[in-house]
Amino acid sequence: MDFTRGTKLKITYNGNVMDVTYISKDEDFLTVKLQNGYNITIPENKVNVLDSSEPQNVTKKSIILKHGNGIPISLITTGGTIVSAIDYETGAVHPSTDIRKIVDRYPYMEEKYAISVREFDNILSENMQPEMWIKLSAVLKEELSKSNGVVVSHGTDTMSYTASALAFMFEKLSGPAVMVGSQRSSDRPSSDSFGNMEGAMAFSSTNVGEICISMHSGTSDDSISLHRGTRARKMHSTRRDAFRTVSGKPIAKFKNKNVEFLSEYTERSDKTSLSNKLEKRISMIYFHPGISGQDLEKLSEGKRAIIIMGTGLGHISQTLFPSVKKIVGMGTKVVMTTQCMAGTVNLNVYSTGRELKKIGVVSAENMLPEVALTKTMYLLGNYADEDFESMMKMNMRGEIIEREFLGDCY
Amino acid sequence: MDFTRGTKLKITYNGNVMDVTYISKDEDFLTVKLQNGYNITIPENKVNVLDSSEPQNVTKKSIILKHGNGIPISLITTGGTIVSAIDYETGAVHPSTDIRKIVDRYPYMEEKYAISVREFDNILSENMQPEMWIKLSAVLKEELSKSNGVVVSHGTDTMSYTASALAFMFEKLSGPAVMVGSQRSSDRPSSDSFGNMEGAMAFSSTNVGEICISMHSGTSDDSISLHRGTRARKMHSTRRDAFRTVSGKPIAKFKNKNVEFLSEYTERSDKTSLSNKLEKRISMIYFHPGISGQDLEKLSEGKRAIIIMGTGLGHISQTLFPSVKKIVGMGTKVVMTTQCMAGTVNLNVYSTGRELKKIGVVSAENMLPEVALTKTMYLLGNYADEDFESMMKMNMRGEIIEREFLGDCY
Repeated sequence: MDFTRGTKLKITYNGNVMDVTYISKDEDFLTVKLQNGYNITIPENKVNVLDSSEPQNVTKKSIILKHGNGIPISLITTGGTIVSAIDYETGAVHPSTDIRKIVDRYPYMEEKYAISVREFDNILSENMQPEMWIKLSAVLKEELSKSNGVVVSHGTDTMSYTASALAFMFEKLSGPAVMVGSQRSSDRPSSDSFGNMEGAMAFSSTNVGEICISMHSGTSDDSISLHRGTRARKMHSTRRDAFRTVSGKPIAKFKNKNVEFLSEYTERSDKTSLSNKLEKRISMIYFHPGISGQDLEKLSEGKRAIIIMGTGLGHISQTLFPSVKKIVGMGTKVVMTTQCMAGTVNLNVYSTGRELKKIGVVSAENMLPEVALTKTMYLLGNYADEDFESMMKMNMRGEIIEREFLGDCY
Repeated sequence: MDFTRGTKLKITYNGNVMDVTYISKDEDFLTVKLQNGYNITIPENKVNVLDSSEPQNVTKKSIILKHGNGIPISLITTGGTIVSAIDYETGAVHPSTDIRKIVDRYPYMEEKYAISVREFDNILSENMQPEMWIKLSAVLKEELSKSNGVVVSHGTDTMSYTASALAFMFEKLSGPAVMVGSQRSSDRPSSDSFGNMEGAMAFSSTNVGEICISMHSGTSDDSISLHRGTRARKMHSTRRDAFRTVSGKPIAKFKNKNVEFLSEYTERSDKTSLSNKLEKRISMIYFHPGISGQDLEKLSEGKRAIIIMGTGLGHISQTLFPSVKKIVGMGTKVVMTTQCMAGTVNLNVYSTGRELKKIGVVSAENMLPEVALTKTMYLLGNYADEDFESMMKMNMRGEIIEREFLGDCY
């Protein structure tokens, strides 16, 4: 038979009949979710299908739910693993319902917060596009006007891109906007969604006025970190402590039901101020041995800017310099970042760096490359071209670290 | 006057005359190196040039020096910061001389090793090209036949690319081949070149049969790590402990003049076996929100393979799938890696990953993206096309970690 995700199966294995929902197929193997929440992987030929029913697809949009009495928090759902649990009754995915289940995990939250849920979308975050950041920013602004703070649930894959894009678009925020995701869906016993959401709710009831990310601090459940949206990165593809503040401490930790601040932050403003135009014609280019000037030129065609991830202090092969010169000459901004995880770009140390600077390459200082991308989108969308270089080097939203960080960087 | 690197100046500053060599100019500021090794940066208009002389350019190639009696070690110099010190007599750069100065730092090494130095090139490592890896591999093989082990001094920027390319080309090694670099040149008091070289010499006198990297373990000088060439990465643009073994422990540490092994390694073979063909028509593509199918297709033109750095478990936007299909259909290999620092690609977890797998995208498992690039160059250069996917997923040189690492990953 043709197995599809969500197909309900009754399978016989080792003499026992288990009522399970099929969740994935890898060549001749099936991975099935048991009712205790654990997954098992078994050879397909060991499976006898006793009963199967196709899942129903349910789409829900713009649902508004009220929940509890207390500090008003708006929860905007965009999709991702945190809402990707399977409903065993229908086999379909119910984001808003599932997010309520996550919130319901901690009964005390009923007393503490008044949570309203708004479904923005239900996508895997690799499908997030700059156009959607613009729409999301408008919804966020609207929700923030009605609450103390906003929680945005989001897939982890591009969460730091979205966070930094929002961070630039909001010059001022009347309250915290906390993005939250999970590395394991809430129907798995090891899910981090409950803890991350509990932390996000607590962080969104503080007086922080920044776009942040709330995820596990370590591999255990006892601490949730609040990362600045312009300094966070997904560092691991599977671990629950995937997100780190690069070259700095998190803003705060949530532990034993308390928020403890670890570093400085921008406090909430009286009002929210949003400039949500974005220039989308921008490429990121990963320098590597063997890349040619032609490659560089092709990726620059029709672009307003390119973000190069160079090596070390911001270097690329000298064979590429004529192409860079040509690209700059056509009016395209060329921004240099580093493919090193941490540390600054510095085009003054080596003669080749100075040559790039002379050609007109703009140093992104110690900004993360993804953040240099969203900042470039923001600057070219909202400001004059001639201000680009000076604004790029200006620390606008905590994206540039003013003093070199001496502790653990990742 | 026109200042150029290496120009000798006598400058007056705060009433004192200092005999210095000018090393860099940043707009209206000069950075000058004092005779005590420290740099100062001063406004250009505070400088009175009393005397200046232009540097001479000296190029030395294929110099062979003998040094000491003991374990025979060959040192191949390729350039980079470790040999970039300025000769104050002439203002020119003498790699071979400088490397000898580094080795001379520790008199005991004279007794312990018989070191011969061979100059391969004198370039900044961002200028290293795959064609040069092939030439370097031949020189390395030759030198290894005459010694217990080989040390290759190299710029740090692309050192992990070179190390992993060499690692694939050498199926067997009759002794250790240890790459060494430095983050600060040897004329600076804080230089890491002496310690890194001392460690490299010690590592190259062991019975390891792998291509490795020898760099500072931490920010202090007391320990040098030996990293597997297929698992190391430059993680920081300036710090001396820039290199890390990603998702594992280093092979060994050099501390208190002793080598201590920390994890398993391949021992030296009776003979060295080298297959040094490389397919160079390969692109690396960094996925990001806003990248278009057209961008992907342009970068794939004329390429035998593309290495995509996807998000999380190896994801890209579904809007790119038709282009990926087209690229695969043209016979171009499409390899998926992750832009997360650590963790594996897994195309089985989400429906979109399974779709990519169905299209024909090859998972690079938990290989580092740079290593997936050099492995692809090696496989397409030396093996049949139809073996590509199975060999890509096979652990050939320690590039794939067999069990998930539970400790600190970076």
